[in-house]
Parts: sequence; structure tokens; C-alpha cells
Amino acid sequence: MNYEDWVRQELPELSKSLGFHHTPHEEIKNRLARIRTRMEKQEVEALLVVQKMNFYYLSGTTQDGLIFIPLEGKPLLMIKRELERAKVESAIEEIVAFKSNREIPLLIRAHCRKLPISLGLELDRLPVKDYFKFQELFPGTRMMDASLILREARKIKSSLEIGLMRKAGDIGKKAYHEAKKNLKNGMTEIEFGGLLEAAAKKHGHEGLLRVNSLNYEAYTWHVLSGITGGIVSQSDSPMGGLGLSPAFPVGASLKVIRAHEPILVDFGTCYHGYQADETRMFSVGRMNQKFIDAYKACREIHDAVLEETRPGADGEAIFAKTLRLAEKLGYKDSYLGPPGLQTRFIAHGIGLELNELPFLAQGRSYPLEEGMTFAVEPKIVFPGEGSVGVENTVVVTRGGFEILTPASQDIFQV
Amino acid sequence: MNYEDWVRQELPELSKSLGFHHTPHEEIKNRLARIRTRMEKQEVEALLVVQKMNFYYLSGTTQDGLIFIPLEGKPLLMIKRELERAKVESAIEEIVAFKSNREIPLLIRAHCRKLPISLGLELDRLPVKDYFKFQELFPGTRMMDASLILREARKIKSSLEIGLMRKAGDIGKKAYHEAKKNLKNGMTEIEFGGLLEAAAKKHGHEGLLRVNSLNYEAYTWHVLSGITGGIVSQSDSPMGGLGLSPAFPVGASLKVIRAHEPILVDFGTCYHGYQADETRMFSVGRMNQKFIDAYKACREIHDAVLEETRPGADGEAIFAKTLRLAEKLGYKDSYLGPPGLQTRFIAHGIGLELNELPFLAQGRSYPLEEGMTFAVEPKIVFPGEGSVGVENTVVVTRGGFEILTPASQDIFQV
Repeated sequence: MNYEDWVRQELPELSKSLGFHHTPHEEIKNRLARIRTRMEKQEVEALLVVQKMNFYYLSGTTQDGLIFIPLEGKPLLMIKRELERAKVESAIEEIVAFKSNREIPLLIRAHCRKLPISLGLELDRLPVKDYFKFQELFPGTRMMDASLILREARKIKSSLEIGLMRKAGDIGKKAYHEAKKNLKNGMTEIEFGGLLEAAAKKHGHEGLLRVNSLNYEAYTWHVLSGITGGIVSQSDSPMGGLGLSPAFPVGASLKVIRAHEPILVDFGTCYHGYQADETRMFSVGRMNQKFIDAYKACREIHDAVLEETRPGADGEAIFAKTLRLAEKLGYKDSYLGPPGLQTRFIAHGIGLELNELPFLAQGRSYPLEEGMTFAVEPKIVFPGEGSVGVENTVVVTRGGFEILTPASQDIFQV
Repeated sequence: MNYEDWVRQELPELSKSLGFHHTPHEEIKNRLARIRTRMEKQEVEALLVVQKMNFYYLSGTTQDGLIFIPLEGKPLLMIKRELERAKVESAIEEIVAFKSNREIPLLIRAHCRKLPISLGLELDRLPVKDYFKFQELFPGTRMMDASLILREARKIKSSLEIGLMRKAGDIGKKAYHEAKKNLKNGMTEIEFGGLLEAAAKKHGHEGLLRVNSLNYEAYTWHVLSGITGGIVSQSDSPMGGLGLSPAFPVGASLKVIRAHEPILVDFGTCYHGYQADETRMFSVGRMNQKFIDAYKACREIHDAVLEETRPGADGEAIFAKTLRLAEKLGYKDSYLGPPGLQTRFIAHGIGLELNELPFLAQGRSYPLEEGMTFAVEPKIVFPGEGSVGVENTVVVTRGGFEILTPASQDIFQV
């Protein structure tokens, strides 16, 4: 049997038996409708989508390729590698192979008889070189920015997407509870981080967290103990940790974990590409009282955010409320980072990527909507000493919210 | 003590005691000289470098920022977050803070009294939106592509870089030998992959492998057993495995590992950003004879590549030689993938990223040079059955080569 026949005959059953869920046709149809409403408003005749998570959102596959979406008519999925597998994974009807980018306009013309007058591209991520190539391939076409069309469409999650995030949260719960068994006085942060990840992977965590950014990387071994919890790094986060080298200056380090230190574990999990982000506190022996108190304050701020979480609430107002509460609780100068380096958000949107809409942040005044998902993360940082925090991923429901990260919020003390 | 003072006083000692090595001034000077020779040839007056690994190569830090490199005079390191930490990590003398991109031309003008007439940018990765922003900020400046300047300069490794890759290879050796203890009949691929990674992290592996690409991701849990080893995926690799979902269709899956199957482990490690890529075979009980034979062929092809590896040898000719040898050994239709999907390279350059120059590949006729580093990876794939392969990272030396991945090449049988 040749390879292509083997894939057609065997892969659907094999992948299903090993836990693969394919995005149903109906779901893709709804997503296309959401995109097209926005295309119409922005007067874009067609989109050419390349960036991995936008591509996955619209096609259901992450095989190497592009998807062309005309305002009317069927989308065209063009696959470089591997075609037969894309056909198994994607509910898109028209799927064709290509080898060289030069074929792209020919395939589009064959698909819908003409090239579009205006073409939306992901200018927030598309490399300049590829843009120049597309200009050459579509000489009469006006290139437009489709970044916001895609970000806006992905901002509201369907019940299918929320279900996948719930599964990611369940994996996180198992991983946190199992990790507790591995934590020992005298092990390094990275050793504990590795075991935490291994536990999560065993339960189906996909290992990488994705961010829509040229340079920003998210890792899932963010374990900071005592002094390293008080270190800020390149990420827009209240604390970054020391990391392992100047090439990885964030997250777990070779520092040895000691009794009574606050151990902050900011560990996201991923299922079918959908992420759940959460933070929990660990300690070996009883955590020093200062950090227990500060953690209590974080939970109070966290609960205050959720109290306001419902359709129509304003994200910026919620952020401002947390500033006032942190000050009232006596943490003005340590809330969300050291003075001068404090972050200006209390929650970030999350789904296929860690920096989706909405942000509950300074300068971001817009109403929450049903189906938005975000990670709420109040944190308190004491430079030279350590940090504490709690984080949960939530979805806005008609009546308020649902927490998607069910791990216990008590300190995991061993 | 405020945070900035704490970083200045405490971070140098703390990070040193936890294994951080900073790129010395002399090394940065040499790298700048290599870059400037190429800038002169391409008639670029200055570079503005953003992409994380190019930025790290030239500055020694990965804090969030940009580096401006004029053809003459001192480079200027501009840091968004976190300034004090960048000062600890980087040997660049002129380091300034900025908050908004609008400050960039002002800082450059303050640094060297004028804006450049021509400016080299990383057009292979820079997003279009950022490019448009730079055009606006530097209205009289001609933008040029500096991608190749940077790729070419990074192609030859210094002894410091080779030393870091050697350390990455040592971590890999420890991880492979420890992983053997964890392998058990009946565990899933991803469970084994997680434990392998955890072992590597404990020894200092930095967890992520980096690739210079918009969409391509490399993971370090590439564990394929039996049938999944015969599956091709989106990556330009002889086999990809099943993965965990359509969102992660590469690498380890939830398939249970069984006795006598070939277990292919393609697992790279990373130390101070420098990577060593290697592949080894595992089995529970004796591997089926067909795969033992094919693995022997892979090792023979691997050794034939190294026999030719020395300064002046032609990479394309070496690739062609392996095709002839694979055919002679009886693996014409399974060498480097199933028919129609076979990859066209036998080695890829490696360093800070997995797709550096040189490639020993079809259509890439250029001579090897002393200091080049690449991963040689002959692989044989049987769809529906499994795959085998061996991979080592090597450096071209004056007299031939040195292997940087010292783990045993025998089958790890438990």
C-alpha cells in the first residue's frame, strides 16, 4: 500500500482512537460567518490567512499551507505538506496541493475565476519578505490589513472552544495535584518544573503555549521560589523569575527550593490548541506569614474581579477597582510588580493564544461580552524576597462567569 | 532598597552562582566585526535588529528591545523591559531605556547625531506592520534587507559558541541515558517524552528549541513508536509522528508503546540558547530485525557523511552520495520518507536556531567551512510500520569534524 492510501484508510480511525477531535463542519461554517461579517464591514473582498493559529481556527488543521477566504463562495485550502493528512483533519471542502508560492494565484483563479481586487493579510505577523512576494503574485490587488478582523472574530468563543478550554483546565488540575507529590526541599526550580510538565503531558497537555508575537515566548515551567519570584524580566508580567541563562531569562532557574519560601507556579496547559492559564502557590513547610497574608490579598482581589464579571461590565473599570483595593489592603507598591515596573492589566484574553482580546487593563475601555475568555491574575511582588499570586481562566456567561481552571486555590503545602 | 538598586547590587552575583554565563565583550566585538564586513559589502549604513536570536547574538541579552548597529561607532542597545537586567547581561556599552517606538529615531539621533541614509532590517521575519512603522519613523531612510547579512555572519561558530553547543550535547547524553530507566512497556509516547524532557531540564536543558520561521515550531518531545513513526506531518522532516491533536500534529502521541517496536527519539537540547540536535533508537525487548537492519543502514549513511566532512567539501555532493548509498543498501523508497514525500536534505545547520546555514541538501552547492555546525540525520521510514534513524550535531574542524552529541549510538534496549 502506498503512503497516501495508508493515510486515507488508516489515519481517521487511528487518530480518533488516540484522542483526536476534528473541528466539525458546522463550527467552521459559523467561524467563517463571523469572519465574513467583519470582512464586509471593512470592504475586503478576500482573505489569505497564513499565521498558524488563525489558519487552524478557520481550517481545523495545522498542516503547512494557506487558506483563501472569499467574501462569497467556498474557501480554498492550499496545502504544501501534508495534503492527505489535511484532508483527514479539515472540514473545508476544497483542498488542493501546491509546491511553490507561484502556484497560489493560479489556484485561486482556478477556484473562483478571478483574483480579488482587495486582499486582507495578517500584517501584524506576516513577514515583509512574504508581503513583497504576495504583491508580486497579485499585481492588481490592493493589500489590506486583516489582523483585526481575525482578532475580533476569535474574541468570542463558541461552546466547542469553551469545552476544549475546560478540558485544558482539567488537565491543569490533575497536574497541580500530582505535582505536589514531587515537590521536595532541596530540589531546583527547573527540576520541579520539569516534573510538573511531565505530569501534565501524561494527561494530554500539549506542551507549548502559543502567543501571537514575533519575540514573546511562553513556557510552561514558570516556577519561582523565594528570591527569584522578586525578579522582573522582559515579559509584560509582574515578575519573570531568573530563568536558566541570558537566552532564557524567564521562568524556573537552577535555584534550590527551600522550606517556608513562597513558590509561585504559573503554569498553563493546552488541549487541542486551546489554553487554560493558572497560577497556584506551593510551599515546603508553612509559608512565611508575610506571603500568606499577601496571597490572601491576591485572592480577595481575584474574587473582586469575578464579582464584576458579566456581560456589559467595563474591563478598564474593573482594573481600576483592583488598584484601589490593592491600595486599601496595603499593597500599593507591590501590586503587579515593583514600583516603576508594575504591569497595567489584571487579565488577558486567552484561547489559542495567550494574548487574545479582551484585556482588562488601563486604556482598554470596552464592555465584556458573553463567550469572552480571559485569565485573571493578581500578583504581589517583593523584590529580594519573593512573590505570590493566583490566576484563573474564566469565561463570561450570560449570568456572570464560569471558572475553567478547577484546581484547588489553597496553598499546596507539603 | 528599590528594585533597580537591588538588581544592580545582587543580580550579577546571584545569576553567576546559578550558572549564568554572559557573552564577553571580546566575543561581541568579533561578532560585530563579522557583521560589519558584510554591511560594507552590501552598502548598508546601519542595522536595526529586532528578532530575538539575532538580537541575542549581537547583544548577549534577550531582554525586550532593539539594537542599532552603525557601520562605524558604537552600537546602541535600546531596552523596553527590563533595563537594569539588560545592563547586567549585555557587554554593549551604550544601553538606554525607551517606552514607545516613537523614541527610537530620537535615541539614534542623540547617539550618532544623524539618522542613517540606508537601514538594514530583518525582512525575513519583521512583521509588515512594524516595517510600516519604521518607514514612518525614518522618513528619509532607504530600507534594505539585512536577513542574509545576519544569517551569513551566524553561519560560522566561534569557539565560545561551539563550547556551549558541546554543553548542550552533554546534557542530551545525560538525558538519553537517564530516560532509559523510565521507559516501560505500556506507557504512552507522551508520558515517556515528558519524563525525557524532565530529565534533560534537571541537567540544565532550556526546554524550547528555536526556529527562524513564522509558523514552524520545534518541540523536544519527539517520541515515535512503531506505527506513528511512519506518519508524515507538516514539518520538512522524513516523519512527523501523530502528535496529540490537529493543533499539535507532530511528535509524541497518546499511543501506547509496545515491546519490540522501534522507538525513535528525536530530541534536541539547549544550553544558553545553543542547541544540539540528536536522534537515538529505543526499544522494549529486542527490536524487530527489519528495523535493526534499517538502523544499521542509517548509521552507515551517517558515517559516510562524516567521512566527507571537512573544509572545502560540497554539501550537495555529500547529499547525493547518501542517495546512492541508500539505494545500494536497498532503501531507495524508504530513505528520508515515503515515496513522493522524501525530504531533500541530509543535514541542517544548527546553533541558536534549528534552521541555520548550511544545509547539506539538493540545490545547495557550497563548500563546508571550519566552524560550521550542522545536524546529520539519515532516517528510514516504513509507512504503517515505523521508522528508524540516527542524528548527531557536528562541527567542521580544520582536519575534519567533531561530534558534539556524545550519547551512545547503540539501541537503548530495556
